[in-house]
Amino acid sequence: MRVHVLKRVLLGEPLSTAQARHERLSKVTGLAIFASDNLSSVAYASEEILRVLVIAGPAALNVSTPIAVAIAVVIAIVIYSYRQTILAYPQGASDYIVAKDNIGPAAGLTAGSALLIDYTLTVAVSVSAGIAALTSAVPALYPFRTWLCVGAITLIAVGNLRGLRESGRLFALPSYLFIGGLLALLAVGFTRYASGGAPEAAARAAAEPVAAVTAFLILRAFASGAVALTGIEAVADGVTAFKPPEVVNARTVLAVLAVIMTVLFVGTTALADLYDVVPREHETVVSQLARVVFGTGAVYYYIQAVSMLILILAANTAFADFPRLAFFMARDGYLPRQFSNRGDRLVFSNGVVMLAVVAAGLVIVFDGDTHGLIPLYAVGVFTSFTLSQASMVRRWLRLRPARWQWRVAISTLGALTTGVVLVVVAATKFVDGAWIVIVLIAILIMTFVAIRQHYQDVARQLSLEGYDAPAEMTHTVLVLVGDLHRGVVEALQYAQALSPSAKAVYVETDPDRTRRLEEKWGRHGLGVPLVVLNSPYRSLLGPLLEYVDHLTGRPGKHVVTMVIPEFIPARWWQHLLHNQTALLIKGALLFRRNVIVTDVPYHLKH
Amino acid sequence: MRVHVLKRVLLGEPLSTAQARHERLSKVTGLAIFASDNLSSVAYASEEILRVLVIAGPAALNVSTPIAVAIAVVIAIVIYSYRQTILAYPQGASDYIVAKDNIGPAAGLTAGSALLIDYTLTVAVSVSAGIAALTSAVPALYPFRTWLCVGAITLIAVGNLRGLRESGRLFALPSYLFIGGLLALLAVGFTRYASGGAPEAAARAAAEPVAAVTAFLILRAFASGAVALTGIEAVADGVTAFKPPEVVNARTVLAVLAVIMTVLFVGTTALADLYDVVPREHETVVSQLARVVFGTGAVYYYIQAVSMLILILAANTAFADFPRLAFFMARDGYLPRQFSNRGDRLVFSNGVVMLAVVAAGLVIVFDGDTHGLIPLYAVGVFTSFTLSQASMVRRWLRLRPARWQWRVAISTLGALTTGVVLVVVAATKFVDGAWIVIVLIAILIMTFVAIRQHYQDVARQLSLEGYDAPAEMTHTVLVLVGDLHRGVVEALQYAQALSPSAKAVYVETDPDRTRRLEEKWGRHGLGVPLVVLNSPYRSLLGPLLEYVDHLTGRPGKHVVTMVIPEFIPARWWQHLLHNQTALLIKGALLFRRNVIVTDVPYHLKH
Repeated sequence: MRVHVLKRVLLGEPLSTAQARHERLSKVTGLAIFASDNLSSVAYASEEILRVLVIAGPAALNVSTPIAVAIAVVIAIVIYSYRQTILAYPQGASDYIVAKDNIGPAAGLTAGSALLIDYTLTVAVSVSAGIAALTSAVPALYPFRTWLCVGAITLIAVGNLRGLRESGRLFALPSYLFIGGLLALLAVGFTRYASGGAPEAAARAAAEPVAAVTAFLILRAFASGAVALTGIEAVADGVTAFKPPEVVNARTVLAVLAVIMTVLFVGTTALADLYDVVPREHETVVSQLARVVFGTGAVYYYIQAVSMLILILAANTAFADFPRLAFFMARDGYLPRQFSNRGDRLVFSNGVVMLAVVAAGLVIVFDGDTHGLIPLYAVGVFTSFTLSQASMVRRWLRLRPARWQWRVAISTLGALTTGVVLVVVAATKFVDGAWIVIVLIAILIMTFVAIRQHYQDVARQLSLEGYDAPAEMTHTVLVLVGDLHRGVVEALQYAQALSPSAKAVYVETDPDRTRRLEEKWGRHGLGVPLVVLNSPYRSLLGPLLEYVDHLTGRPGKHVVTMVIPEFIPARWWQHLLHNQTALLIKGALLFRRNVIVTDVPYHLKH
Repeated sequence: MRVHVLKRVLLGEPLSTAQARHERLSKVTGLAIFASDNLSSVAYASEEILRVLVIAGPAALNVSTPIAVAIAVVIAIVIYSYRQTILAYPQGASDYIVAKDNIGPAAGLTAGSALLIDYTLTVAVSVSAGIAALTSAVPALYPFRTWLCVGAITLIAVGNLRGLRESGRLFALPSYLFIGGLLALLAVGFTRYASGGAPEAAARAAAEPVAAVTAFLILRAFASGAVALTGIEAVADGVTAFKPPEVVNARTVLAVLAVIMTVLFVGTTALADLYDVVPREHETVVSQLARVVFGTGAVYYYIQAVSMLILILAANTAFADFPRLAFFMARDGYLPRQFSNRGDRLVFSNGVVMLAVVAAGLVIVFDGDTHGLIPLYAVGVFTSFTLSQASMVRRWLRLRPARWQWRVAISTLGALTTGVVLVVVAATKFVDGAWIVIVLIAILIMTFVAIRQHYQDVARQLSLEGYDAPAEMTHTVLVLVGDLHRGVVEALQYAQALSPSAKAVYVETDPDRTRRLEEKWGRHGLGVPLVVLNSPYRSLLGPLLEYVDHLTGRPGKHVVTMVIPEFIPARWWQHLLHNQTALLIKGALLFRRNVIVTDVPYHLKH
């Protein structure tokens, strides 16, 4: 099996269940793997705020820093609230599970749909933003951006099919290099500004206002910047991926994340504001900032390189979360069972492949343009945030643990804040694409319900409750022949092993051929009787189906096994030259009751 | 089977073999069906001559009429020669058969490849020229020309899948309407010119020469106009489609075709010359002529309508010839066997579908542009013409029938003429696309030889020559189970019918589940022993393959039948929710020797 060899080379040797515990993450690698999604949004969130404000002219851009501060406050509230969730769900808790447990299946499915969409968009947005960092530094690559994105997604998917720990190790370094690079950018940038040495970016003067600075515009800018919150839920979702003590480690990582995120995001936005940076089509805001602060030299290329790396690798968070969520939903019967199969390498292979395919499709449709994907992005994120916080409120009210009043207050604040942001995002981005996500969530929920209903229905149909022994059955074995050769003789021998009364069936289209066949049959037919069916319309199927229906139609349960001799050629292209008739017959018999088709392969040597 | 009902509605009821004789054509419908290809080239052949000459300026266009006369002479020679071929091959003779019989397989394959390419291009060129006639009259449709072409090809293909005679009836009328319309155009056009009432087309004065009138340019123009010969071979190929006396009828049709073709083609070219018509991108030459002669009124639209109809329907000739040639080549083992199966309606369905798909692909690639396809077109046609005439020379020399010297002279003239045209076409159109066809012919020949070699090789491997009874075999029946429910119980019952010593196999991934299964097994397992295989890597496949290999690896021939219980859901989308594991296992076992996989379907009710 050459395919299996290839799989081993690409994906590594399979791991046993006992090895699962050792695939855990330390705080340092855990921060890198779960925080990369959230942190990396620094590379585009400030830009998205500016992109909205710029239509109201250069003066409006000054509102960006207050907006960033407002978003940082939301981040603090959400992270504080999620730290509580981790205490309540030490075994790890997807918003799907939290909402399902505390409010009910409908809330759980809404959160689950929102998250699945969110993870997919995380991959698409992060990868396109990463490639934008690359093409900002190397404009010659701009025309190939879509295919660079698809290539990056493929790489990450293969990495994830290899397993979690190796991914963690691989991803730790770029995250820290990015944090270091951005901190240096902020330090040097603010220092130079304070010392009056800041040259202005030339573009800002040129921008002309086409709209006024209205409250709606500011809310839209806030909604765009709110993508800075994406990925926060990843830590709470993945508690069990940490080394013990899992809860302590996960909560520590969340707190550290909040601090780093606030510094980097507010800092970058403020610096862009001070340096009068204006968003451009072919160059990101971070790239412009780095160019102005450091000049186009080694440090500039370092910033671009680590921005690209953390963004592309950020997609990895989704590749860890999507299959895990799909697993939980499949376990509850809302997704096809195959999502609950772990692959050979302890990851959920089906989820990984599916996520990669859909995200790559999105990137192709949106031409690798981050900006076009953003309006779709935040709705899903804030839907699951709001449901998750609201669920925690209900949970504290129901269980009343120590200091429950305080916990209720925190979760209520979280729910209200994220709920308000959700309404702002949905309202200000509705026509830009938020409606697509709302429709999609509805469709997904209906699909999940239908799938679960089907599985329950099947379970009822298959139940052995009140089922005694099956009815007596009789059995006929037929071998379909078109000629007599070694392959057919082997099939006849096999049919005789199945039933001593096996018969061969031949559909006659030409009496001369029948005569020749009958002659051969005497010598090599192994004594199996040959039934010749007449076919006035030269159709193979018609007379055959009639004969089979006649046999199975007799009173009582009568099963017909149709043995079909089939060639297995030595080379792939030779498949096109054989077995077309067998395929046709199998298709026709597939849906007939009490008919079982058995291919008897004859292996050709060359 | 809903699919079958749809097939009946679209394609009609099946016809019995006995009905085949009545699907024959009279001379009148025969001319329409076989001549439409050749005649329809009048609609674009003159234009192709002008398109080459126009680059040498308005004065050069006057050479067009002599070129058309030269081509008419070639037409006369070729048709005279083919009338002889019909005498020699009263059962109908594709150039493939003629070349194979008289020169050898290599010549036959060359002619066959050339013809298959030619038929495909006939469909693409005729349909795009037909849609060009439509968009000349209704310019608003120009942007949709590619999809109009694809739609037309689909219509013709469905018509052909319905059967030959109905096609003939359908196609007779437009052919005659076209002949009538063009004769009227010529009569009125020449009369008005003679009486001095011809207004000049405005465009000709504007054209500026960019090249000189060289001998090469004239040869290129001749090569472009030579597409007027395409389709002549159709009559000789389809002799048996005529009513008896087939030979007489076919020869008569060929003679009539020669006369009509010469009049229409030379007449149209001369008229375009007299009226100083210049080729334009959005309007065909015939459309311009009809507009000048009749004005943009009812008669003009009539001319455009019948041009479109005959061109689109001309593609039908190829739909009759391609599958027939594919049948002959498949019978000789050069093409996959499925091309030699007649469909339910006495036509060769596989060839029809294949031709439609490839031609539609060509139209899409060339954006429905007739002009771009022309350079590919003539090489194939003249390759098969030349080989066919040369074959006839050898035949007359070998058989020496009455008046053989005269016949040799005719066929030699034909072979030399078409050979010279072939060289001219290949040389003057080489860079424009003729090279593609030459390469393609080479590739096709190699493919055909490889296919035949494979079939011969298989026949040798399967031969019963010197083959006695097969070796003694033993047999084990295994049922693969993942759970115990009604579907599994039915599979167990079936396995017991195959062999009283059947066993069930279960791959353990979780000891708790195994315990629950064993409990159920006692009550509902029908006494079939349950083999539990341990799987440290949670892989279903590994332990299973190991067990099966252990069984088949025992000395002597031992066959394992793996019974797999499978669901047949009631709705198509439910398939996605089941049987993924069964599919995986089938794939893994497919290439294992002495292992036979049998699905036992369990039909779900809803």
